[in-house]
Amino acid sequence: MKMHQSTLLGLFVLLSALSGSYCGKVLVVPADGSHWINMKVLIVELHSKGHNITVVRGSNSWYIEEESPYYTSITVDIGEFDSDFWMMLLPRLLQIKRHGKSFWSEIEIAQEIFSRFSEVHHQICNMTAMIFENEILMNSLEDGKYDLVLTDPAFGGGVLLAHRLGLPLVLNVRWTMYGEGHFVVAPSPLSYIPIPALQLTDKMTFSQRVMNVMVYLIFIYQNPKFFGYHYQELSQKYFGPNVDFFSLLQDADIWLMRNDFTFEFPRPTMPNVVYMGGFQCKPAKPLPDDLEKFVHSSGEHGVIIMSLGSVFGQLLSEINDEIAAAFAQLPQKVIWRHTGPRPANLGNNTLIVDWLPQNDLLGHPQTKLFVAHGGTNGVQEAIYHGVPIVGLPISFDQPDNLSRMQAKGTAKIVDIATLDRTVFLEAIKEVLHNPSYKENMQKLSKLHHDQPMKPLDRAVFWIEFVMRNRGAPHLRTQAYRMSWIEYHSIDVILSLLAIVLLVPVSITFIIKLVWYKGFYKNKAKN
Amino acid sequence: MKMHQSTLLGLFVLLSALSGSYCGKVLVVPADGSHWINMKVLIVELHSKGHNITVVRGSNSWYIEEESPYYTSITVDIGEFDSDFWMMLLPRLLQIKRHGKSFWSEIEIAQEIFSRFSEVHHQICNMTAMIFENEILMNSLEDGKYDLVLTDPAFGGGVLLAHRLGLPLVLNVRWTMYGEGHFVVAPSPLSYIPIPALQLTDKMTFSQRVMNVMVYLIFIYQNPKFFGYHYQELSQKYFGPNVDFFSLLQDADIWLMRNDFTFEFPRPTMPNVVYMGGFQCKPAKPLPDDLEKFVHSSGEHGVIIMSLGSVFGQLLSEINDEIAAAFAQLPQKVIWRHTGPRPANLGNNTLIVDWLPQNDLLGHPQTKLFVAHGGTNGVQEAIYHGVPIVGLPISFDQPDNLSRMQAKGTAKIVDIATLDRTVFLEAIKEVLHNPSYKENMQKLSKLHHDQPMKPLDRAVFWIEFVMRNRGAPHLRTQAYRMSWIEYHSIDVILSLLAIVLLVPVSITFIIKLVWYKGFYKNKAKN
Repeated sequence: MKMHQSTLLGLFVLLSALSGSYCGKVLVVPADGSHWINMKVLIVELHSKGHNITVVRGSNSWYIEEESPYYTSITVDIGEFDSDFWMMLLPRLLQIKRHGKSFWSEIEIAQEIFSRFSEVHHQICNMTAMIFENEILMNSLEDGKYDLVLTDPAFGGGVLLAHRLGLPLVLNVRWTMYGEGHFVVAPSPLSYIPIPALQLTDKMTFSQRVMNVMVYLIFIYQNPKFFGYHYQELSQKYFGPNVDFFSLLQDADIWLMRNDFTFEFPRPTMPNVVYMGGFQCKPAKPLPDDLEKFVHSSGEHGVIIMSLGSVFGQLLSEINDEIAAAFAQLPQKVIWRHTGPRPANLGNNTLIVDWLPQNDLLGHPQTKLFVAHGGTNGVQEAIYHGVPIVGLPISFDQPDNLSRMQAKGTAKIVDIATLDRTVFLEAIKEVLHNPSYKENMQKLSKLHHDQPMKPLDRAVFWIEFVMRNRGAPHLRTQAYRMSWIEYHSIDVILSLLAIVLLVPVSITFIIKLVWYKGFYKNKAKN
Repeated sequence: MKMHQSTLLGLFVLLSALSGSYCGKVLVVPADGSHWINMKVLIVELHSKGHNITVVRGSNSWYIEEESPYYTSITVDIGEFDSDFWMMLLPRLLQIKRHGKSFWSEIEIAQEIFSRFSEVHHQICNMTAMIFENEILMNSLEDGKYDLVLTDPAFGGGVLLAHRLGLPLVLNVRWTMYGEGHFVVAPSPLSYIPIPALQLTDKMTFSQRVMNVMVYLIFIYQNPKFFGYHYQELSQKYFGPNVDFFSLLQDADIWLMRNDFTFEFPRPTMPNVVYMGGFQCKPAKPLPDDLEKFVHSSGEHGVIIMSLGSVFGQLLSEINDEIAAAFAQLPQKVIWRHTGPRPANLGNNTLIVDWLPQNDLLGHPQTKLFVAHGGTNGVQEAIYHGVPIVGLPISFDQPDNLSRMQAKGTAKIVDIATLDRTVFLEAIKEVLHNPSYKENMQKLSKLHHDQPMKPLDRAVFWIEFVMRNRGAPHLRTQAYRMSWIEYHSIDVILSLLAIVLLVPVSITFIIKLVWYKGFYKNKAKN
């Protein structure tokens, strides 16, 4: 029935697309790197519906093409700034994890990552200020009569630009400069909502809950100070001293969240949060001939796919050698996306490729297992196709993503710090041979597909909704217009407490007064 | 485009219905009275999809028919209990409102309503216990192999029965014995979420916020004590001393909420809350000939519809006389649903009927205004068809429903306590002649219709989802499994505060100790 429904829904979407929708103008301010892959999926879909897209990109962009059949681009010259520092930091991070693991070296590299990111935010602000100061560009943007700004709030340029142009704002979001998106927009009871980076689940012990609250306090102090600060400065410069950047972000019309509740733990949400987890996933297409031949040759044992995503292509060669040696002992065939020196110990069963059609391979019926670093896209493709995971998380949200999968019984995490052929082989064998991993992942996959509407169609519906209705104010709460003290009713609680305390104090006072007067009177009498 | 979309979506739903859905067995435990009207809409729709429905009803039911083409019924003999006390209390309530309005008379009647409702809850518990004790009935319910229990948790029998039978639970809900549904299932910051009965909005002054918190504290003390108590007793008797009825309710798989954010103020929600506000509304069908002729005769002035719902058919005749006199002064035609003595002062333009096709009349292009008591169904039909309201709220949720509409600029409320022909006529004229009422209501109507899926289809999708997946545990948070202290992290906060306080105390102590020892030593030396 599932297939029937989705075919029919496809038919519906096709027909409604043909029935003459409104064609809008969308100004996209994307984040670079792997985030662009996601944004492009939305752009291509919006373009196919007949909307006009304009993309704002920096002249140093790694990924965002200047020329595209799907959009017009506006390139802002931001000089020589190198935002690709991650490729240099990654090997150092891995070195520290494997050999120099001490508290101070961890703190040191964390601090460096922090300050590098802070620099990127600063650079984005410079780029935004350049746009604001460029009268010709601003005029052309104003004349462009866009219907909305679509942005990824990992960086804040799009939020500022939307406010400057007075346009409705749609976010394509999982992370913001203040942390995970939900923590900005929805109530998040820390008793069962794990904050990022701690690899906790929604079932926490007392000490885990203490840790969760403590690290949350550090985050709400640190994130505005290191990341939000730059945007706050710009907001006040251009929009006036009372404009708070955090409120501009909270005030977005629609939050298209790149997750759903097969991926995320269930938690409170908001009327203007739309879940589009897995929106980039598609049914598998046939593989290229040579790859299909290789996969087919695996027979009943099946295939293992290994890929560490677009940014994490290389590990240290000592890790690769151990991984290769473990793979060599398996009856399965292995397709390993890998660039850099060829690992030693490579078995005949292992095919090294520098790119692979990940979605089509994960959707192949002979694929048994996915070895992944745990980036959001890869995990969601694994859920979509129901393939269990052996996870090698390195940084960012990867440990958290994989700990969610591990908590749901669909993945096993191997610590890259202590990985050797034995540990890795054991993990692979466990996920291959203990049927619960596959069963749990296929159950999750079934739930993910059992939705009234496909995630991408839902995302496009709400973008078009914002076009049709010039925003979505009826879905935005008053919470964003209140101070922290008002929102948490602290003023009310203190007033009520004061009254409660005042009553007995006053009564005591009155009794004392009466008693004293009586006493005095009696004394005077005597 | 809107019409295109909904026609196409209708096609999709029709086709997917034909493509061989799973046919489930649904055990319905409805609430009686006007709530049954809503439940029946769901039952008829589920029946049309091929599902088997069984309805549990009390032998004293006002509305729920024993025989129906849509369901099989199980009637439980509950003797002579009269739950229709409302019809007796209503005239007294109106008398007090108009003539005897004093603080004490209001308290007295509120208390009587309270204790009558408490009796009804007690009676529902008796009925549930009778079911539990009836071995033959319980066996047949167990043998029935139902897929889920669908209930309206205004009363708690269905929640208990679902737990007893170990079945997934779907709620058709706006009110529970603990108050409005959201307050049971979702975080509800009292700073911008008005609690029921105060007619507040999401924009509150300081003193309104104080009132909101204070009345909330009364509610969370009073509702479990008067209403929840009966079910709590039964839970502990049949399921063990540690089973908490409130948690059983919170733990429902899906909450089908009879509202949406064109009706309700935007507020936090939960993954398993599905909004189906307006699910009972349909495009207007042609009117019966005589009614159409009457409506047509109104010409450019149009028609006013007045109906006070199924339970509130009669007002006091002194009120009716004033209303009739006001209507008589209008150029519009009036269709008034009214039973009881014919009002004096009735104009030639006013047609009295004892029943009217409300949905079809509200959807008629010549309808200008709806005079309504503000029951949820009527307000939603007005939103659906975009007809502004003059509201005469009497009790229950009616004042709140209408205050929401008034806050959105789509209705004007007239206080029934002071209503006379002048006040009523002025209100009617204001809503008729100030175009903002109609514009705002039509904007609301446009937003209500601009959804990816029709509310009734969405409701049925999620009921069928629960059938397919034996519940929806991935959408239920851990919140319901925590104590109040854990949920609010009170244990964590107190522990952290203790540590924060302990550190300076310890340091002071150590300093004092060292100083004392040094002092003592020095003293000894001298």
